[in-house]
Amino acid sequence: MAECKKVAVIMGSDSDLPVVQKAIDKLKSFGIPTEVHVMSAHRTPTQAAEFSANAKKNGFGVIISAAGKAAHLGGVLAAHTTLPVIGLPIKSSTLDGLDALLATVQMPSGIPVATVAIDGAENAAILAVQMLALENKELADKLEAMKADMEAKVIEKDKKLQQTLNQ
Amino acid sequence: MAECKKVAVIMGSDSDLPVVQKAIDKLKSFGIPTEVHVMSAHRTPTQAAEFSANAKKNGFGVIISAAGKAAHLGGVLAAHTTLPVIGLPIKSSTLDGLDALLATVQMPSGIPVATVAIDGAENAAILAVQMLALENKELADKLEAMKADMEAKVIEKDKKLQQTLNQ
Amino acid sequence: MAECKKVAVIMGSDSDLPVVQKAIDKLKSFGIPTEVHVMSAHRTPTQAAEFSANAKKNGFGVIISAAGKAAHLGGVLAAHTTLPVIGLPIKSSTLDGLDALLATVQMPSGIPVATVAIDGAENAAILAVQMLALENKELADKLEAMKADMEAKVIEKDKKLQQTLNQ
Amino acid sequence: MAECKKVAVIMGSDSDLPVVQKAIDKLKSFGIPTEVHVMSAHRTPTQAAEFSANAKKNGFGVIISAAGKAAHLGGVLAAHTTLPVIGLPIKSSTLDGLDALLATVQMPSGIPVATVAIDGAENAAILAVQMLALENKELADKLEAMKADMEAKVIEKDKKLQQTLNQ
Amino acid sequence: MAECKKVAVIMGSDSDLPVVQKAIDKLKSFGIPTEVHVMSAHRTPTQAAEFSANAKKNGFGVIISAAGKAAHLGGVLAAHTTLPVIGLPIKSSTLDGLDALLATVQMPSGIPVATVAIDGAENAAILAVQMLALENKELADKLEAMKADMEAKVIEKDKKLQQTLNQ
Amino acid sequence: MAECKKVAVIMGSDSDLPVVQKAIDKLKSFGIPTEVHVMSAHRTPTQAAEFSANAKKNGFGVIISAAGKAAHLGGVLAAHTTLPVIGLPIKSSTLDGLDALLATVQMPSGIPVATVAIDGAENAAILAVQMLALENKELADKLEAMKADMEAKVIEKDKKLQQTLNQ
Amino acid sequence: MAECKKVAVIMGSDSDLPVVQKAIDKLKSFGIPTEVHVMSAHRTPTQAAEFSANAKKNGFGVIISAAGKAAHLGGVLAAHTTLPVIGLPIKSSTLDGLDALLATVQMPSGIPVATVAIDGAENAAILAVQMLALENKELADKLEAMKADMEAKVIEKDKKLQQTLNQ
Amino acid sequence: MAECKKVAVIMGSDSDLPVVQKAIDKLKSFGIPTEVHVMSAHRTPTQAAEFSANAKKNGFGVIISAAGKAAHLGGVLAAHTTLPVIGLPIKSSTLDGLDALLATVQMPSGIPVATVAIDGAENAAILAVQMLALENKELADKLEAMKADMEAKVIEKDKKLQQTLNQ
Repeated sequence: MAECKKVAVIMGSDSDLPVVQKAIDKLKSFGIPTEVHVMSAHRTPTQAAEFSANAKKNGFGVIISAAGKAAHLGGVLAAHTTLPVIGLPIKSSTLDGLDALLATVQMPSGIPVATVAIDGAENAAILAVQMLALENKELADKLEAMKADMEAKVIEKDKKLQQTLNQ
Repeated sequence: MAECKKVAVIMGSDSDLPVVQKAIDKLKSFGIPTEVHVMSAHRTPTQAAEFSANAKKNGFGVIISAAGKAAHLGGVLAAHTTLPVIGLPIKSSTLDGLDALLATVQMPSGIPVATVAIDGAENAAILAVQMLALENKELADKLEAMKADMEAKVIEKDKKLQQTLNQ
Repeated sequence: MAECKKVAVIMGSDSDLPVVQKAIDKLKSFGIPTEVHVMSAHRTPTQAAEFSANAKKNGFGVIISAAGKAAHLGGVLAAHTTLPVIGLPIKSSTLDGLDALLATVQMPSGIPVATVAIDGAENAAILAVQMLALENKELADKLEAMKADMEAKVIEKDKKLQQTLNQ
Repeated sequence: MAECKKVAVIMGSDSDLPVVQKAIDKLKSFGIPTEVHVMSAHRTPTQAAEFSANAKKNGFGVIISAAGKAAHLGGVLAAHTTLPVIGLPIKSSTLDGLDALLATVQMPSGIPVATVAIDGAENAAILAVQMLALENKELADKLEAMKADMEAKVIEKDKKLQQTLNQ
Repeated sequence: MAECKKVAVIMGSDSDLPVVQKAIDKLKSFGIPTEVHVMSAHRTPTQAAEFSANAKKNGFGVIISAAGKAAHLGGVLAAHTTLPVIGLPIKSSTLDGLDALLATVQMPSGIPVATVAIDGAENAAILAVQMLALENKELADKLEAMKADMEAKVIEKDKKLQQTLNQ
Repeated sequence: MAECKKVAVIMGSDSDLPVVQKAIDKLKSFGIPTEVHVMSAHRTPTQAAEFSANAKKNGFGVIISAAGKAAHLGGVLAAHTTLPVIGLPIKSSTLDGLDALLATVQMPSGIPVATVAIDGAENAAILAVQMLALENKELADKLEAMKADMEAKVIEKDKKLQQTLNQ
Repeated sequence: MAECKKVAVIMGSDSDLPVVQKAIDKLKSFGIPTEVHVMSAHRTPTQAAEFSANAKKNGFGVIISAAGKAAHLGGVLAAHTTLPVIGLPIKSSTLDGLDALLATVQMPSGIPVATVAIDGAENAAILAVQMLALENKELADKLEAMKADMEAKVIEKDKKLQQTLNQ
Repeated sequence: MAECKKVAVIMGSDSDLPVVQKAIDKLKSFGIPTEVHVMSAHRTPTQAAEFSANAKKNGFGVIISAAGKAAHLGGVLAAHTTLPVIGLPIKSSTLDGLDALLATVQMPSGIPVATVAIDGAENAAILAVQMLALENKELADKLEAMKADMEAKVIEKDKKLQQTLNQ
């Protein structure tokens, strides 16, 4: 594959890893070079700020930020870079993820965070790939193939359902 | 500027234009070639599907989708393309935009919509520019300049505030 | 029974089947010819659009659409047909079904989706039967019988409760 | 037009008329014979129950119920008939219509209310027409024409937008 | 005890009994003559209306209504009587009881339903006793005793906590 | 009229008076002796506690508590009396009254507050009258008359609507 | 007054000033030395971080942070200091302040933000004074006086209300 | 350590202890003298009021109030003292803690409650320490150490994650 910028996957707590793992796996399935970090907007703000401020020159193209509750991580990373930042709100033990969703998506003018569904780790990865694919035909072709594959699988499931229901 | 892919701004209703205009203006300020359309996921589904299916080969790099209420437009456009689709939820006369936000952001696995804040038109544009800037140094530099300018303006406002308060 | 139009039950994912099964069973209990499909507004949008566009000429009278999260399926199907579309919001792992409810019910003017309760599969089926019964006396009679039966069962439960409480 | 069953439009309060008027007008535009009543689930429960219980034999095919706040009217009407009942939640002075939406749509098994968007009066009417059109080709054709007209209008608006933007 | 009016406990479904049982037990602990019924606003509307319309002359003083989802039962009972109706919203499988709460409490002017907390069965009973105690000194004294007992129990728990923490 | 216990109408702030006035007027229309006070759970907690603790012996039968935001007043009054306390949640400048509703209705076991709709002042008064009418035939008759009058007015409005629509 | 630590009032945007002014005025009424700044968690993250990191050594005792939408400012300031940070959520044009409230209050373990009501500027100031008063008897006495004054004003309002109502 | 004011931890019910224990443990880890009580705003209002009214003269500096549902405890305690009161909303069996959050945070002007996250017991304790540390260098140093330790732990976790992912 043509040289591809890296994707950073930053999670606010290592307890987010079970959800975030799906994003990592999906990025790997596309062959995207990926770095994964635990960095907290609140506990390691300096590290998070430095990572983000240097991300572009360090070869990153996209940053995925996963955080729950008052999920500030996406906004904090976005404050220090002009790279696109994807926000992945994580459901925690109260409020069913609504807090993380609003804290991630309702960014003020000037500093967007591209928000995906609560716990939508796979989509965070796919969105990152879509961005990188803008100038990478190989990735774009893989996305087309994934899309065709998803379609084929639904069609296959529908066929199986017909068989099941008609038995 | 190096040749740049186009951005499509699709709104579900022409009544969304007052909000969407800020996205159009911001894209223009970056010199991004932009096409603006009224297309409805429900009233002109075929046009919307065709536009999206052909967007890549027609030179588009990013699609911005603005819709209110049961905002399906982002998802419908994303269903037909592998380009990144940015969803801009529009506040309507009931529920304060929560319906449009959830209908835009809570996409199922496989088909992300990069969602920005309710009525966050400017951020939809900036996010599109960030994506296009991944392989366009000129745009990247403009983003850096915009960021520096935003910072300078806040610092300036703070200074003025000090003068006002100390009078 | 007088010839009856078919009901299509379309679910966005085969994971919805456990909830949707109650709709299928209820339709069968009324002797309604039913077709069940897995079709996704986002993964198989063309199939969904075609199915809906051809539904009337293929002998369908009503379409039931079951989907969770950003539930666009009802709206996408309704966009391609003038048949009544019944939307069944499915509760998923976050937000307790509120996202699916709002994404289904808050349709813009011109394209209604007749929405029932979250996970209210049985009611989706009964509503479909009510529509078909408008010109089918046999179905209308069955609905009256079902209503009488429901009433009798509640009365019976009340009687049993009296016995239990008075022991 | 072939003889058509009547549609009843029942509103819980005459203060709902400004919203409900759009439903009445839309039904008239399809030539549907319509009766409009103010009946309250709570202030005139007997009248509401009797109206509903007799609606079928009095020539009605569909009942539209418009109510705000703890909107019980749809459920009360549906309790007394096997005709399809369409629930139109009305936004009132608090909670932005969420109360009326939930009170209308979350019906228990056995008694569906086909719910449309908050203040979605036009869609309540179109849904009623879709039901009546199941056995009425003239109405079905009118619905197709309305759909084509909606599509044409959006296309027209898009064209005008191009002219405006390119000036 | 001086002759006391009866309390009716009406639940919309026998599945509500586990929650409602606490209300029944509490009423018994005060020696209140109580009748318990399963009656549905939607499945047995006539029985519910008749029960309520005759409740006063049949010796009832207060009606407790327990229902979930689109909880119309309280409003339907209140529509047919001038007795105070206490609404007990029941949590069901979606929306965490918010639907039942809003459908119970947001009654229109003229027909109040005295609403207690979601699943707050014990409080529904105590509120009924408070109403009956207005003209019944024996009940009023029992309420005072219950209040003193609650206070004593909390004080006792606090003492035990001190012992536990100081060990 | 037979001697009747007094109703206390306590509001947390004099800014609540425009809403609360409807409760006062309704109580007067029933000839209920009424005392109205501004007392705050937070600013005058001692006064509120003392008023409530002495309410029964001072001839009150029911307390109506009106408060907005974190509406603690109902709970604080109920903590000091065994009289029934009616909670009237007041809509304030944010959250549309949802905060006041939840803070009023979600009382813990043992201390109910009989909650009416947000800004539902008239119903707070009617509920108080219903309680007092349990042992006061004159009030009970007035309630029946009010109910009949409400019914008549809706019927009258329906008639006028027929005339308007048929012109 | 004994030497008192300063309070910093940081607002995310100068558009928040009309709300924040009440906090400034209240602090002044207590004679608290106050600095007011416009600093953005997203536009001037470095300035905000530096201000907070140096606040303690610069003589500040408490930081008040006012921000709307995805209100990250409180968390960002708290990340860089061990001083208590008070979060004041500001209502913006959508979602009625719920987004700012959740983004401010739902902080992860280790980094609290002391949150007050939406738009509750006066309380942010009073809370700051309460903290500073812990070791400053003069401030503590002023707080007691303010409390007594609030009580007296409510009592006075109640008296006036009696006069008004009895006229 | 220099003499330190005490912290009171008041919980509305002993069932809150499992959550509250984390606050107690955290306070102990800082060596803060702590008193823990079960006191209810509704069941033991007099005790709660007296405790709060005497807290300052009894050597307390901060009060932490933990309560669920209609969480009035924080407001009731704050009404009787000028000490800072920290509100800890507890999640209960319905509404996911939203009721307790709003009932705690939305305090009217004049009586703040410093609210932390739902079930955020540890942060309630840390916030109390931050207040006490304003005039206590030893506590301030411990807070700095805790902050450094948190940072170190996240950095350590990040290192371990790198090892795990690179294996």
